[in-house]
Amino acid sequence: MLRYVEDYEKGRTYELGTYKVTEQEIIEFGRKYDPQPYHVNAEQGEESLFHGLVASGWHTCAMFMRLYVDALLPGAAVEGSPGVDELRWLRPTRPGDVLTGRLTVTGITPSMTRPDCATLHKRGELTDAEGLPVMRLTLYSMFRRRPRE
Amino acid sequence: MLRYVEDYEKGRTYELGTYKVTEQEIIEFGRKYDPQPYHVNAEQGEESLFHGLVASGWHTCAMFMRLYVDALLPGAAVEGSPGVDELRWLRPTRPGDVLTGRLTVTGITPSMTRPDCATLHKRGELTDAEGLPVMRLTLYSMFRRRPRE
Repeated sequence: MLRYVEDYEKGRTYELGTYKVTEQEIIEFGRKYDPQPYHVNAEQGEESLFHGLVASGWHTCAMFMRLYVDALLPGAAVEGSPGVDELRWLRPTRPGDVLTGRLTVTGITPSMTRPDCATLHKRGELTDAEGLPVMRLTLYSMFRRRPRE
Repeated sequence: MLRYVEDYEKGRTYELGTYKVTEQEIIEFGRKYDPQPYHVNAEQGEESLFHGLVASGWHTCAMFMRLYVDALLPGAAVEGSPGVDELRWLRPTRPGDVLTGRLTVTGITPSMTRPDCATLHKRGELTDAEGLPVMRLTLYSMFRRRPRE
């Protein structure tokens, strides 16, 4: 039961569930990919503009992706993504945060290169426990069209 | 010896060094954050449009960030980043790839909210061993201005 581009509805918002952020995970990601002081060390984080340890912005993107993959991509006829626009880190991600993911299909356009595909335009968001926005982004994905019988 | 916004020159390109990609690292990142078949399993990758295991696009971003942090951010008076625009994944990242990072300062604008800061606009790029582009993005960062004596 593959899901094709026809199975996604323009204007519809999909709930992606929640992600619990731990200090250990923030430090692990920071050490590997973004070893700025406030991403790897709680004490140095305290002395920074963030007043504490915060996740790398790329780590916050990765958390969003995990929610998106688990909620919407199993069985999807997805053919990769050309990229992302308007990615904004609006509030820091901190240990103990519980982030909620949401994704809205904002447009569906024919692929310029592949007649069997269309590009899905989506607006993604993570919010914190108080409903305040933590991250927003515009994502594109290539999806296959449902084959004709 | 902090580096302030005045220490970055508009139009200058900075070399960020190289990143060697391993299969183990691709699978580890994929399992945690982007468990689509072609990011976690070499055999399933073979059957996909990528004809092999490829890194999550977010993983490629994280590799770029590591090069950028190591090359340019130690001692930088950086105050976080509002976000990214025009992120494009142009070629897949595969096990064994050696990626080269490059960053060009494309603009410096006064901060709207903090008179002691300016926003650096940068265009980043990863290329493969043949010099072909793998990823491009526009990054913004807040930097402090050099304090007056």
